[in-house]
Amino acid sequence: MCNTTQIVQKIFKNITLTNDELHLIANTFEKVYLKKDETLLKINTTVKNQYYVYSGCLRTFYIDKTGKEHTLQFAIEDWWISDYTAFFSSGKAIMNIESIQNATLLKLSRTQMEHLLENIPALETFFRKKMERAFSSFQKRILSNLALSAQERYVAFVNTYPNIEQSVKNYHIASYLGITTESLSRIRKTLAKG
Amino acid sequence: MCNTTQIVQKIFKNITLTNDELHLIANTFEKVYLKKDETLLKINTTVKNQYYVYSGCLRTFYIDKTGKEHTLQFAIEDWWISDYTAFFSSGKAIMNIESIQNATLLKLSRTQMEHLLENIPALETFFRKKMERAFSSFQKRILSNLALSAQERYVAFVNTYPNIEQSVKNYHIASYLGITTESLSRIRKTLAKG
Repeated sequence: MCNTTQIVQKIFKNITLTNDELHLIANTFEKVYLKKDETLLKINTTVKNQYYVYSGCLRTFYIDKTGKEHTLQFAIEDWWISDYTAFFSSGKAIMNIESIQNATLLKLSRTQMEHLLENIPALETFFRKKMERAFSSFQKRILSNLALSAQERYVAFVNTYPNIEQSVKNYHIASYLGITTESLSRIRKTLAKG
Repeated sequence: MCNTTQIVQKIFKNITLTNDELHLIANTFEKVYLKKDETLLKINTTVKNQYYVYSGCLRTFYIDKTGKEHTLQFAIEDWWISDYTAFFSSGKAIMNIESIQNATLLKLSRTQMEHLLENIPALETFFRKKMERAFSSFQKRILSNLALSAQERYVAFVNTYPNIEQSVKNYHIASYLGITTESLSRIRKTLAKG
């Protein structure tokens, strides 16, 4: 297990930081450990934090008025997770986040982030580019939902989250693809036959 | 019709800019006029530009392998538009953009944007926050696709794009909602009955 400074060096490997800046960031981030199936964020609570995933796997999910779960996304190693719509506006969560495996996260609050951005302007570029990538992945997901068959969406899922299938439950994947677990089984059988 | 400097003042009204900075931005943006039904961006071409919509309405759409169109989004006054996944990576467009009405746009290339960001650090924050809003709107759209009925998605569309319905064709809206134009008619009739 790396210490926080080593993790911070990994996260920000593409930008040049002085030692002072590195330590400011490392002292700002707070390590959070989650066991499998723990809740990180609960619907209707104020969203103050975003999290960097050092290890483990989490998922963000929405519960509709019939009680059905819809998985918006999974977060694996080196991803960031929050209910960003609420995080940006300091509003209340419309989604839940839970751990699917034991996880180690680094927590960064909105206030802490603003403080870091004021003191280390290079981080503006980092967080802008992070948002650009997140935006692109959402664009891909919207187009998949609109234009791809369930089987094609499943293949895209496997490509986006390699090695995740062993760790997550079938209904997590089905609720991400917008299909039933029965359809998921059929798709896997079809693909296995080649 | 405002001149470019006046439009730039409007776009960046929330940040403090010196007169020199304002003029640098105004001299960088290039005005583009489009007639209704003109193509702004064609699939498979390299995406170098993003556009600010001063007036008019455009749509970004994807054509699947069966030739069916899927509208990713509409852009109305005060929105920005591009194939952002390709724009960020200087890659090729996977979507088309066309004007639905006569439109006046301000064009900003990736290179020009990087140049502005180097010279006016305050713009980093502006473009980060713009990405945050765009990201949030995509998050909402993904959740709508997963969790809402076609009728609920239609109501959300009307709220997101007020006053747009008169300007766009029914098949544009249907291809945004992921339904047929017949379903769209049925939904409108149901809602009209109250």
